[in-house]
Amino acid sequence: MGERLKVVISNDDGIYAEGIQTLAEWLSKKYDVYVFAPDRERSAMGHALTLHKPLRVEEIDYDAPVVKAYSVTGTPSDCVKIAMNAILDFTPDIVVSGINHGPNLGIDVLYSGTVSAALEGAINGVPSIAVSLINGFEKYADFNPSAEFIANYIPRVLEAGLPPKTIVNVNTPAVTLNEISAIKITELGRRMYTDTYERRVDPRGQVYYWLAGEIVDENEAEGTDVQTLRNNMISVTPIQFDMTNRQVLTDDICRQNLNIEGSVHSILS
Amino acid sequence: MGERLKVVISNDDGIYAEGIQTLAEWLSKKYDVYVFAPDRERSAMGHALTLHKPLRVEEIDYDAPVVKAYSVTGTPSDCVKIAMNAILDFTPDIVVSGINHGPNLGIDVLYSGTVSAALEGAINGVPSIAVSLINGFEKYADFNPSAEFIANYIPRVLEAGLPPKTIVNVNTPAVTLNEISAIKITELGRRMYTDTYERRVDPRGQVYYWLAGEIVDENEAEGTDVQTLRNNMISVTPIQFDMTNRQVLTDDICRQNLNIEGSVHSILS
Repeated sequence: MGERLKVVISNDDGIYAEGIQTLAEWLSKKYDVYVFAPDRERSAMGHALTLHKPLRVEEIDYDAPVVKAYSVTGTPSDCVKIAMNAILDFTPDIVVSGINHGPNLGIDVLYSGTVSAALEGAINGVPSIAVSLINGFEKYADFNPSAEFIANYIPRVLEAGLPPKTIVNVNTPAVTLNEISAIKITELGRRMYTDTYERRVDPRGQVYYWLAGEIVDENEAEGTDVQTLRNNMISVTPIQFDMTNRQVLTDDICRQNLNIEGSVHSILS
Repeated sequence: MGERLKVVISNDDGIYAEGIQTLAEWLSKKYDVYVFAPDRERSAMGHALTLHKPLRVEEIDYDAPVVKAYSVTGTPSDCVKIAMNAILDFTPDIVVSGINHGPNLGIDVLYSGTVSAALEGAINGVPSIAVSLINGFEKYADFNPSAEFIANYIPRVLEAGLPPKTIVNVNTPAVTLNEISAIKITELGRRMYTDTYERRVDPRGQVYYWLAGEIVDENEAEGTDVQTLRNNMISVTPIQFDMTNRQVLTDDICRQNLNIEGSVHSILS
């Protein structure tokens, strides 16, 4: 037996959320766990960083038997960045972000604090996993099957040899492990929202708006994360943070219209 | 002459920032411009959405001769989303986000509110451009050449036929248009930061941290946005919001290790 793997965990639901606590419990059985998580809920933060105010990092007592737990007054990305660049004196073997209470599928990943923390791990050169539990946002959720799965899946991810700039985004259905039929590598689905806003008037006669987007239950293609979850399988999507669209780079017509290596003056005339 | 194009503009420096005002001036010469921008600075917000509080949208007087200007109490993504889904009764022809005061190159785009507003345009099915001025964050910046360029470049982008889910991220050097030698289609560079944190102690003896990352001036490859800007060219990078890494989807070894369509129980044993 070698040394135990060192795992940094984070999330966007806050350090006291049940998802990260259950994850901490399960991972601590096999690994040395270091918690760096926001002091409060930071959902739909996207890949935000705190630049204009300082960060506080407080070591706290934690129910799960982790090595250390730190509450951070910042975003999920802040948590992972400060862990690796200011607090820890070693590089962790892996970063795990979650377990998010609710799905991170398709377009969700762009807005997801959970995913952003894992991306921040990859930006710092460490293999990283984002993990979410699909349970339709019911108040009660059993995070244990998802956490047990991740505890056992970590060595596989490390062996997989993910390409640079790439993480895996895992979504697990809210069922027991016995009910899960398979693990499937998927692509991001569409998962369109209606993006409606509810317009209301406050007691002083001023208008305000609530974002009230609902998911459009469109036909999602086979092989997408959305479709896979519907079949009670675990979805594992490789996600990269290099967003360059290389198809455009090699498309002559598109390049020509965008005027590659053309003169500015031909545009201005 | 047909109708004038309808352009929604936004940014992350706030509605009164010089960059968006100069953009509004130039675009209004040729197009019907609708401003939807944050009421205050919202830099490094990533692709954040406001879910837990309502949004206020206030129509304001604006110096530039735009059709309408609205100040929004939200993030850049909120601005574009609420414009298209609650305020406007038409679909704009294009969304332009900027002009950001400072570069959005390489890894920056993940954290950039400017880019996120343009991505939100694409999510809503409208061709979109993010534009930034590279001037090393000096206080004085002349946004006019950049704005004039974009005013003339918009028809090119519309003709280019960008693939779905794709925007163009434009970075312009802080020089006159005469000094710009070319426009070049690029890929995102590395643009690594040191990500150091300055540790300080407050008057009450408590520790706090400032993110103080500096850019590592590494050798950037030819064809990257970073390298292109160094040669006083305008960089145009096609960026997609579908982050699936399709290379992994077709890599047998990687797939096998990630256990495609494998049993959960083989992982748990």
